[in-house]
Amino acid sequence: MTKKKNTGQKLYQKAKRIIPGGTMILSKRPEMFLPEQWPSYFSKTKGCYVWDLDDNRYIDATVMAIGTNTLGYNNKEVDDEVIKNIRRGNLSTLNCPEEVKLAEKLIQINPWADMVRFARTGGEANAIAVRIARAATGKDNIAICGYHGWHDWYLSVNHNKTGDDLASHLLPGLKPAGVPRDLKNTVFPFSYNNYKELEDLVKNKNIGVIKMEVVRNYEPKNNFLKKVRDLATKNNIVLIFDECTSGFRETFGGIHKKYKVNPDIVMFGKTLGNGYAITAVVGRKEIMEYAQKTFISSTFWSERIGPTAALKTLEIMEREKSWEQISSKGKTIRKGWKDISIRNKVPIKILGIPALSTFTFNHKDSIKFKTFLTQEFLNSSILASNGFYTSTAHTDSIISKYLEIYEGILYKIKKCIDEKESIDRLLNGPVAHSGFERLN
Amino acid sequence: MTKKKNTGQKLYQKAKRIIPGGTMILSKRPEMFLPEQWPSYFSKTKGCYVWDLDDNRYIDATVMAIGTNTLGYNNKEVDDEVIKNIRRGNLSTLNCPEEVKLAEKLIQINPWADMVRFARTGGEANAIAVRIARAATGKDNIAICGYHGWHDWYLSVNHNKTGDDLASHLLPGLKPAGVPRDLKNTVFPFSYNNYKELEDLVKNKNIGVIKMEVVRNYEPKNNFLKKVRDLATKNNIVLIFDECTSGFRETFGGIHKKYKVNPDIVMFGKTLGNGYAITAVVGRKEIMEYAQKTFISSTFWSERIGPTAALKTLEIMEREKSWEQISSKGKTIRKGWKDISIRNKVPIKILGIPALSTFTFNHKDSIKFKTFLTQEFLNSSILASNGFYTSTAHTDSIISKYLEIYEGILYKIKKCIDEKESIDRLLNGPVAHSGFERLN
Repeated sequence: MTKKKNTGQKLYQKAKRIIPGGTMILSKRPEMFLPEQWPSYFSKTKGCYVWDLDDNRYIDATVMAIGTNTLGYNNKEVDDEVIKNIRRGNLSTLNCPEEVKLAEKLIQINPWADMVRFARTGGEANAIAVRIARAATGKDNIAICGYHGWHDWYLSVNHNKTGDDLASHLLPGLKPAGVPRDLKNTVFPFSYNNYKELEDLVKNKNIGVIKMEVVRNYEPKNNFLKKVRDLATKNNIVLIFDECTSGFRETFGGIHKKYKVNPDIVMFGKTLGNGYAITAVVGRKEIMEYAQKTFISSTFWSERIGPTAALKTLEIMEREKSWEQISSKGKTIRKGWKDISIRNKVPIKILGIPALSTFTFNHKDSIKFKTFLTQEFLNSSILASNGFYTSTAHTDSIISKYLEIYEGILYKIKKCIDEKESIDRLLNGPVAHSGFERLN
Repeated sequence: MTKKKNTGQKLYQKAKRIIPGGTMILSKRPEMFLPEQWPSYFSKTKGCYVWDLDDNRYIDATVMAIGTNTLGYNNKEVDDEVIKNIRRGNLSTLNCPEEVKLAEKLIQINPWADMVRFARTGGEANAIAVRIARAATGKDNIAICGYHGWHDWYLSVNHNKTGDDLASHLLPGLKPAGVPRDLKNTVFPFSYNNYKELEDLVKNKNIGVIKMEVVRNYEPKNNFLKKVRDLATKNNIVLIFDECTSGFRETFGGIHKKYKVNPDIVMFGKTLGNGYAITAVVGRKEIMEYAQKTFISSTFWSERIGPTAALKTLEIMEREKSWEQISSKGKTIRKGWKDISIRNKVPIKILGIPALSTFTFNHKDSIKFKTFLTQEFLNSSILASNGFYTSTAHTDSIISKYLEIYEGILYKIKKCIDEKESIDRLLNGPVAHSGFERLN
C-alpha cells in the first residue's frame, strides 16, 4: 500500500474542532468506517461512484448515503427535474403545486390513506406523526420498536427504569442528556416479534400509539404484524409504521404491503427523493385531521426541491420496478457473502432485508475484522464496511468485482484465525467505532 | 374587476382535502391573505416577481416566502452555485466539504462562538439548541420570549396555568393537543422588555436556559438585553438568541451585534440560504460540546444544497451589504405608510424592524380593512397584506408604485370611515383569517 494524500482526513480534523461530532449524522463519521484513513468528504458522485477531495474514485459498496440513493447517485432524470424547478424558483410567498401532486401520488400508492404532510428530515416526520397520533387519541403514552430519530419524545425512553432501554433499538449506553426528565415513562419499547411484551404494555401503560419499524433485522414471526394491527384496532390505538428506512425497497411503497397489514399512519423518508431532502407522513383522514388541532408548521417544508425530486423518483421507481432490482442485487450479495464465508470458514451472520444487507463476524474480534475489511477494500478503491445498501446503479460486474475482493479479504482473515495470529498487525490505523450498526 | 381564472384556488381546494391545513406552513395559507381569491400557488419567480398557475405576474410586496429571500427570488449567483453542486452530487456516503466551510464562515461572523451544527428547518435548529443547552446546564426549565417553532418543548407552555400562555408569543387560543402533558411547567414565557418578570422566573423556577428573539415588534428598552445577559451569566444560565427570523437583516449576522450583547448560542435560519433550506446553531465550545453527550443526528442534514446556498448567499450579502439595502427600503416603506396614513386620517400602528415591517389599522374593522387592501392590491397584480418584508430586488420604482396604490386604497378606506359605511360592500369574498400576525 502506498500512503495516499488524504485531504478529506485533514478537513475532518478541522471539522471536529468546529462541529460537535464532526458530521451532521453519526453514521457518516469517518470513525464508523476507518478512523484516520477514511476519505471522509466527497467532491462528486455518479451512479455508484464517489470521488474524494483528491479526485480518487471509489465504488460505493457500503451505505449509498445511508440508503437514500436507490436509483444511484446523480440520477439524470431526477437532477434535471430539480434543476428545472430551481430555475423556475424554489420558494415563494405562494405554495408549490408539486406538494399537492406528491400528496395525491402517495395516497394512490397507499389506498388505505387519505391525507399527507411533508417534512424535510426523518426525525421531523417521526415527530409530526407522534404529535398527530397523540392529539387523535388524547393519550401521551407510546409503545415503540425500532429506530425513530433524535427527538425528545423518543430518547426519553432512556429516562425509564434501566436508563438504557433503547440499547437494542438505537444504540447502547446513550445518556438522554438534555431530554426533559418529566417525559420519563411516556414511551415504552418492546422487542420485535415479542407480542406478549407489547400486549402487556397495552394492558398496563395506557398506550395510545404503537410506533414501529415494520421489519428490522428479522422477518415477522407467528403473524406478528397482523396481531399488532388487531391489538391496536381493538384498543383504539393509532398504529404508526416508520418506513423512513424500509419504504420502496421491497414494494412500490411500504414494506407493509408485502405483509398485507396497513397502519393508520406511515412515514416515508430516505428513498423518497433519491438523495434530496423530503419525508412524508401519510395517514387516514380521521387521524390526520388532528394536525389541525395543534400547530405543525415550518417555512422550509414549503420549498419545491423536495416534492419535485420525489415525484420524479416515484415515476422512475414505478417504471423500473427499482425495488425488485435492488432486492435481487441484495440477494446476490448475500449469497456471495454466505458462500465465501463457508468456503473460507469465517462464520458470519447476515441481517436486514436484501436491499439493506449487513453482516457481523461471529468472532470476538469482529470489529477488528470489520476494520480490516474496510481498510483492504479502500486499498482497492471501494468504500465498504459490513453493510451493503444496494442501488440500481450497482451492476452485476461491480458486484462480482466486490465479491472477488471480499473473498481475498476473508481469506486473509481466515489465515489470521487459523494461525491464531492477531489481526492487529495487519491494521494500519485505529479500530472502527461501533455502536450504531443497525438500519439508521 | 374582471373575474379571472384561478387555477391556484382550484388546486388549493383539492389540497385542503388531502393535506391537513392545506399547506406546509400556516403563514402561507391562502386564507391568511384573501380567502377564495388568493392565487395560492406559484409556477415561477424572479427578483420580486411571482407568477401564478395561470401565468399572471405579481409583484411580491408581502412576505417574500416568509422572509427567506432577502436577495430576491432566483438570485442567479446562488442558483448557479447550487446547480453546479447538484451536477456534482448532492448527497453521498461521504460528507460534503461545504458544511465545514460554512461552519468556519459562521464562526468568523460570530467571533464569540466556536462551534456549529446545521439543520434544515427553524424548528429543528430551535430543538437542537434547546437540547444542547439543557444538556449543558443539567436543568430542564427554560424561560422563553418569542416565536420558536412547532416542537413539543415550546408548545408545552400552553399546558401551564392559563392554558394560553403562548397567546402573545405564537398565536392566541392554541391548544397544545398531542404535546405530552408531563412537560407542563418546564417552559415559562416572559414579556419582552419586562426584566422583572424574567428575574422572578429565574428566582423561582430553576431556569437553566433563557431563549428569546433579540427584537420582535419593539426595540429593547432600559438596557434590557444587557441586563438579560448579566442575569444569565450570574446564574450560569445558557442564553440563546433565536435569530432565525432577525438574522442578516440589520447586520452581517445577528441583530444582537447591533446591541453589542452576545448570547451563548444563536440560531440563524430564513435568510441564510436565500430560499434554500438551511438553518444553523452557532455557539460557544463549552456549551456546544454537550451535543456529544446526547444524540442529535439526521441523514438529510448532510445534504449539500443547504450549505452551498448559504456560502454563496453570505458572500453576496457581505459584498452588497444587503442588510443596509433592505433596512433602507423598509424605512422608505414605513415612511410611506405613515405619511399616507396621516394624509388620509386612517390611523395605523407600525411594528417590527424595517426589513420586516408590518402595520395594523387602529380600527375595529382592522381585519376587514386588511382584507380589502389585499383584494385591491391583487387587482393591481401586487401580492400585499399588512406586512412588507423587503429584499434587494425591490427597486425604488416598485416601492413607489406600491405606495401609490396603497394611497388609493387607503383613500377608499378613509371614505368608508368618513361616511360610516361598512367596508363589507366592497369585499368580493370572505374576510382574511388572523391569529398569526407577527414575525414567523
